[in-house]
Amino acid sequence: MTLAAELRQRLTNSEAEMIQIRRHLHAHPELSHQEVATHAYLRQFYQDLDCQVRDLGTGQGVVVDIQGGHPGPKLALRADFDALAVTEEENGLAFRSQNSGVMHACGHDAHTAYLLVLAQQLMALRAQLSGSIRIIHQPAEEKAPSGAQDLIAAGVLDEVDRVLGAHVMSTMPLGAIGYHLAESQTGRSNFQITITGKGGHGSMPQLSNDAIVAGSYLVVALQTIVSRRIDPSEHASLTVGSFDGCGTSNAIQQTVTLKGDLRIMKEETRQVIHQQLRQICRGIEATFGVQVQLDLQTDVPVLYNDPQFTQEVVAGLKAAQIPEITQITDFGAQDPSEDFSYYALQCPSTFLYVGCDVADGQTHPHHSPDFKLDERCLLIAAKAVGTAALNYLKPEK
Amino acid sequence: MTLAAELRQRLTNSEAEMIQIRRHLHAHPELSHQEVATHAYLRQFYQDLDCQVRDLGTGQGVVVDIQGGHPGPKLALRADFDALAVTEEENGLAFRSQNSGVMHACGHDAHTAYLLVLAQQLMALRAQLSGSIRIIHQPAEEKAPSGAQDLIAAGVLDEVDRVLGAHVMSTMPLGAIGYHLAESQTGRSNFQITITGKGGHGSMPQLSNDAIVAGSYLVVALQTIVSRRIDPSEHASLTVGSFDGCGTSNAIQQTVTLKGDLRIMKEETRQVIHQQLRQICRGIEATFGVQVQLDLQTDVPVLYNDPQFTQEVVAGLKAAQIPEITQITDFGAQDPSEDFSYYALQCPSTFLYVGCDVADGQTHPHHSPDFKLDERCLLIAAKAVGTAALNYLKPEK
Amino acid sequence: MTLAAELRQRLTNSEAEMIQIRRHLHAHPELSHQEVATHAYLRQFYQDLDCQVRDLGTGQGVVVDIQGGHPGPKLALRADFDALAVTEEENGLAFRSQNSGVMHACGHDAHTAYLLVLAQQLMALRAQLSGSIRIIHQPAEEKAPSGAQDLIAAGVLDEVDRVLGAHVMSTMPLGAIGYHLAESQTGRSNFQITITGKGGHGSMPQLSNDAIVAGSYLVVALQTIVSRRIDPSEHASLTVGSFDGCGTSNAIQQTVTLKGDLRIMKEETRQVIHQQLRQICRGIEATFGVQVQLDLQTDVPVLYNDPQFTQEVVAGLKAAQIPEITQITDFGAQDPSEDFSYYALQCPSTFLYVGCDVADGQTHPHHSPDFKLDERCLLIAAKAVGTAALNYLKPEK
Amino acid sequence: MTLAAELRQRLTNSEAEMIQIRRHLHAHPELSHQEVATHAYLRQFYQDLDCQVRDLGTGQGVVVDIQGGHPGPKLALRADFDALAVTEEENGLAFRSQNSGVMHACGHDAHTAYLLVLAQQLMALRAQLSGSIRIIHQPAEEKAPSGAQDLIAAGVLDEVDRVLGAHVMSTMPLGAIGYHLAESQTGRSNFQITITGKGGHGSMPQLSNDAIVAGSYLVVALQTIVSRRIDPSEHASLTVGSFDGCGTSNAIQQTVTLKGDLRIMKEETRQVIHQQLRQICRGIEATFGVQVQLDLQTDVPVLYNDPQFTQEVVAGLKAAQIPEITQITDFGAQDPSEDFSYYALQCPSTFLYVGCDVADGQTHPHHSPDFKLDERCLLIAAKAVGTAALNYLKPEK
Repeated sequence: MTLAAELRQRLTNSEAEMIQIRRHLHAHPELSHQEVATHAYLRQFYQDLDCQVRDLGTGQGVVVDIQGGHPGPKLALRADFDALAVTEEENGLAFRSQNSGVMHACGHDAHTAYLLVLAQQLMALRAQLSGSIRIIHQPAEEKAPSGAQDLIAAGVLDEVDRVLGAHVMSTMPLGAIGYHLAESQTGRSNFQITITGKGGHGSMPQLSNDAIVAGSYLVVALQTIVSRRIDPSEHASLTVGSFDGCGTSNAIQQTVTLKGDLRIMKEETRQVIHQQLRQICRGIEATFGVQVQLDLQTDVPVLYNDPQFTQEVVAGLKAAQIPEITQITDFGAQDPSEDFSYYALQCPSTFLYVGCDVADGQTHPHHSPDFKLDERCLLIAAKAVGTAALNYLKPEK
Repeated sequence: MTLAAELRQRLTNSEAEMIQIRRHLHAHPELSHQEVATHAYLRQFYQDLDCQVRDLGTGQGVVVDIQGGHPGPKLALRADFDALAVTEEENGLAFRSQNSGVMHACGHDAHTAYLLVLAQQLMALRAQLSGSIRIIHQPAEEKAPSGAQDLIAAGVLDEVDRVLGAHVMSTMPLGAIGYHLAESQTGRSNFQITITGKGGHGSMPQLSNDAIVAGSYLVVALQTIVSRRIDPSEHASLTVGSFDGCGTSNAIQQTVTLKGDLRIMKEETRQVIHQQLRQICRGIEATFGVQVQLDLQTDVPVLYNDPQFTQEVVAGLKAAQIPEITQITDFGAQDPSEDFSYYALQCPSTFLYVGCDVADGQTHPHHSPDFKLDERCLLIAAKAVGTAALNYLKPEK
Repeated sequence: MTLAAELRQRLTNSEAEMIQIRRHLHAHPELSHQEVATHAYLRQFYQDLDCQVRDLGTGQGVVVDIQGGHPGPKLALRADFDALAVTEEENGLAFRSQNSGVMHACGHDAHTAYLLVLAQQLMALRAQLSGSIRIIHQPAEEKAPSGAQDLIAAGVLDEVDRVLGAHVMSTMPLGAIGYHLAESQTGRSNFQITITGKGGHGSMPQLSNDAIVAGSYLVVALQTIVSRRIDPSEHASLTVGSFDGCGTSNAIQQTVTLKGDLRIMKEETRQVIHQQLRQICRGIEATFGVQVQLDLQTDVPVLYNDPQFTQEVVAGLKAAQIPEITQITDFGAQDPSEDFSYYALQCPSTFLYVGCDVADGQTHPHHSPDFKLDERCLLIAAKAVGTAALNYLKPEK
Repeated sequence: MTLAAELRQRLTNSEAEMIQIRRHLHAHPELSHQEVATHAYLRQFYQDLDCQVRDLGTGQGVVVDIQGGHPGPKLALRADFDALAVTEEENGLAFRSQNSGVMHACGHDAHTAYLLVLAQQLMALRAQLSGSIRIIHQPAEEKAPSGAQDLIAAGVLDEVDRVLGAHVMSTMPLGAIGYHLAESQTGRSNFQITITGKGGHGSMPQLSNDAIVAGSYLVVALQTIVSRRIDPSEHASLTVGSFDGCGTSNAIQQTVTLKGDLRIMKEETRQVIHQQLRQICRGIEATFGVQVQLDLQTDVPVLYNDPQFTQEVVAGLKAAQIPEITQITDFGAQDPSEDFSYYALQCPSTFLYVGCDVADGQTHPHHSPDFKLDERCLLIAAKAVGTAALNYLKPEK
């Protein structure tokens, strides 16, 4: 029996524990940057295990180092653990969220559960490992400032050779593992635009400068960035998600505030959109004689999966012929963003997708109140990531 | 000494009382539809006077009938008494508003003060009057539903031959009386538009239907009503005063709500704008595949000053040569609306303007926190309206 | 018989000649700035008459001075004589336009016909006139550069005390004379806007800068000038009458050219619109990174009828009780522009309207291919203007 | 010496003839659907050769069948021969276009020249061929209706197993061969939109319905199709290439006509854009009360290179180690469209790119007046396509 086979056997034996942990976390979700109880839970988990555990960063990050018995490279495994401001539907689950208005609607509970048990089992086998494994429990994936960025600034990638992460995916069937080479999830920027005109009475527009009119023309003009400025073959979107021009019917608004984001699959595209956003804001200022303040923040980078590392991981998984894994496919590039991309900027990395569809004939989109996952995905994730880890640590590498 | 001269003498003698009443009302302003203390004050004022006093309408309206000693026509004099949701500036006045966030910032305190004292003095002369005078103390001028409309529905104009009103005007010098023939203040309609698309994630616009985009195009399209649909020589404005599309930066808004009003100087223009508003809402619905609900309310009518009655009033005032009145001029048509227009729809009426500029070199616009008036305007208003009333009641008419 | 009555008798006797002249001119219309044959016809008409005839200005203008036998003021009477680029409908008239694509579709043929005969008859009475009359036959009213402006620059108003003009009006019944005090017809400015982006292939918009998109946003933004920048009670319109972005379906346009005009009833409004046009052009330049060239020309001024002179003219016409004139009414301010306004800028003037509706139950709008007039209006115009002229020249004035 | 090596030797020997043919064609370019002289030239070329030559389709198409001595599959080789409405720059070339305003600015002269000589040499080797080769000389690639579509309707693909085509490419260096799997060049649709409002005079917009305003709002609204309706990861562009609203400055336009095209890389995307175009046209109709007529034509399909056939062709070319071919690379998907896609819809096909950059440090874009190619590309194209053809016809296949 190979080491990987032994690890997978151990994981099979621990499946019930993974599920129990996931249910505990699911019942006790915490918003990004406020994951205090989750942090305590993680520390408690590792308390009596034979490993180095550290808090890292300015938030609730926990980092665990598992030093192998033989020399070799250092691989980081990362899971996130924050939840969302979503109210879980009345689904009758025993482990339904107990924190009203907060829900693990993206599956980070599953990520953390499988990684805890995987870490535990890797420790049990540590003497046989060639190299070391760093377990990264990352907070604040969902909301800027990014937990990944914070941990990197605190040194989480020091001496790390590769990073591996995984995300459960309710749009993929149970048993499927997805991957993609190179650009794989969008980069994102956030912006806020404040337009200041001059308030006044609706009956005398000539004495005012209508910020709602200026704001509406701005939204309309912003459409041309994607429609005319970007190579049609490149990924780009720009959304104004908030238009705050609330007031009374008969007064002319002095100020409106817009908030939005943009998504790209190449950093060059981001630069074009940033330049255009600035240009159009200056243009609206000139057109309507208003003041336009643009706060534009580069947020998540494009997620770049190192092609060679990804291909090695995929080849290893295929070779392992893990029974629970029924297909391993290129999942294509994805529209949403993911702050795992910060690790990938610094270090060759790859990010796998683990199918978790409950197959009840309905869709359960991530971030929705009725998000659901098939808990058998926990074991699959653990086996896939564990197998990939041992493949990477092989002495011949 | 003519009867009118005697009335004016009595008013001169009562100037201090008018000012005292105005200061009391100014210190105790009440919002439209909530004028409970003001109503009590009015009832108290008339308690011991020789007149018929009635509450009228569904609100705080008070109507007083002064029956003359001789037969003749019935003239109504109207003053409004509600205040605004404005916080009076820290001006050090002893009678500064004691109700935080509420202010007599339009001068209705002055209207009520002069009319109370004028009513009192007319009662003293009632035996000599040919005809009768109905004093209308109207609530809720500033905010729909209109107090005027309510009182009319309750019968306040029954048997009334003419209605006379007056408004203090901080943009006219003290001593000036203004008038205008025919269409004199704008009519108004209110609207609320709710646009419902489909919410979703900013990274996947193709799965949503962006209500902020639809709302912005609507605002932009609405500009063509005034710019292209209305005879350039006709008065028309349309304001979107509120655009509520508040949300988060990275979600696509499902619903936005707009509120606005429109102003016209001819009812035909109102009909064109209403038709166009409906058409454009249907058009945005069709263009963007959203649902658009339009709630459109005809609110204040155009204020139409009966030309003949107005000319008679003006001629009478000019002939009276009242020393405090230094000019009587056509003040032109005014952009704001005024619910006195409801009386004028039913009965030949006219509405005078009474200059009240404090002449300190600054502007003190109506509805602003630093609105101010020169209290000598009270006596001028009383004399002007009182003189016009007696002129109208003259037996030879 | 008064002198005016004698003049009117003479005009009645000459009605057939007026009609014959009008028909000749109607059959031989000439475009603005090209009125060569008309000019020759005018010179021919005056050839043997006892008067001073001069060519004036850089175009086809003809000025005739009739010196009265007694001292007195100098009154100018003006008629225009250019035609339009309109193809007269197949109406079977014997005097239908013989110049294909050119038509007297505004009635200038009528203006010139009545004024020629009126001049002739005034000359016959010249010994009895107190003062002098200057007949102005003006070319190029319809198209800039203005014939009026040109004649004024050449001195046509030197020593002139008043100017009187008239326009036939197919929207007024025969027998009606219209007038208006003060601002009476709109002023106009013309503009041309050239937007230069960068051409290219439709499949690669990112390499181009789409001038059609920029031009469309410009048209949309221009709507806010009238809708938001002008007092709703003021007259204002702005029309883009030409959008030339012609090309092939699959190329991105490098350049588009817009042409348009604006109309105002106050010169202050013109200034606001000019400033806004410039601002929005700069704004579109900034928003889309295109070059925008704006050529903006102040063209016709607002027509201002001197109130006192107009009232005198009207009072005189009413007093004359001319049988053919069945009503004399304030016609209100008119949307179109008229270069008579240039005279009125320099000298107290008034411009009368002479009803000419053919009363066939249809409308025959000015400038349309089916414009028609009732030729009895010629005599009415001649009598009205002739009577007003003699009233003005009366020695007691 | 293999058969392929022998073919390449023969082609090397014929290089001068290819160049001479290309120069002749370049000097005598003809517009799409008018290629009469080119057709005669082709027929003349084949006159004395041992092959079946047919005219095919409704245009100038010529099809030549070369039957091999042994059984095997049928492969079609296609080259296009129409030119563009471009005026060739004054470049001093002896073979500069002699047809003013027409130019082989896309390189179809090169395509036809290499294919003629390749056909001639294949005929010389016909006894040794296993299978047959159909030479397709296609007219009308540049302009709808498509020559490819016409030939297919006439049966050009009957019994054909594969189709191979090639395009010279001035953005690739000489010696480079490019390819791409699956979706490789955009599909295209054309549209024409006629908006009819109501004409009138610029001073009276209320009596008209301004088609320029409606057209501008339409262009602005169309931007939302690409910006909001399409998955950001999908290829999509929509261009309005022509906006004809030409008129005079002071008249309101009754009618404007827009023309444009759209490009997509998936047929599903085309369906979304078509549906949205229809929806927005209906929406503009409803919004502005105009008539909007949309003529929408599906034009070129997405070019789909059969992955297996493409990989076989590429593998064969790599294996052949042709000295003039210095690199064989995935050229990526291309923004422009190509009617070769019609063949690929019916039959597994692939389309190669042949570098032809003249390497003078300047760009010579296709369709520009200064398009240039390095004539050595002719031999390279002939060798690449010839080698691929023989590889496909190999008996073992």
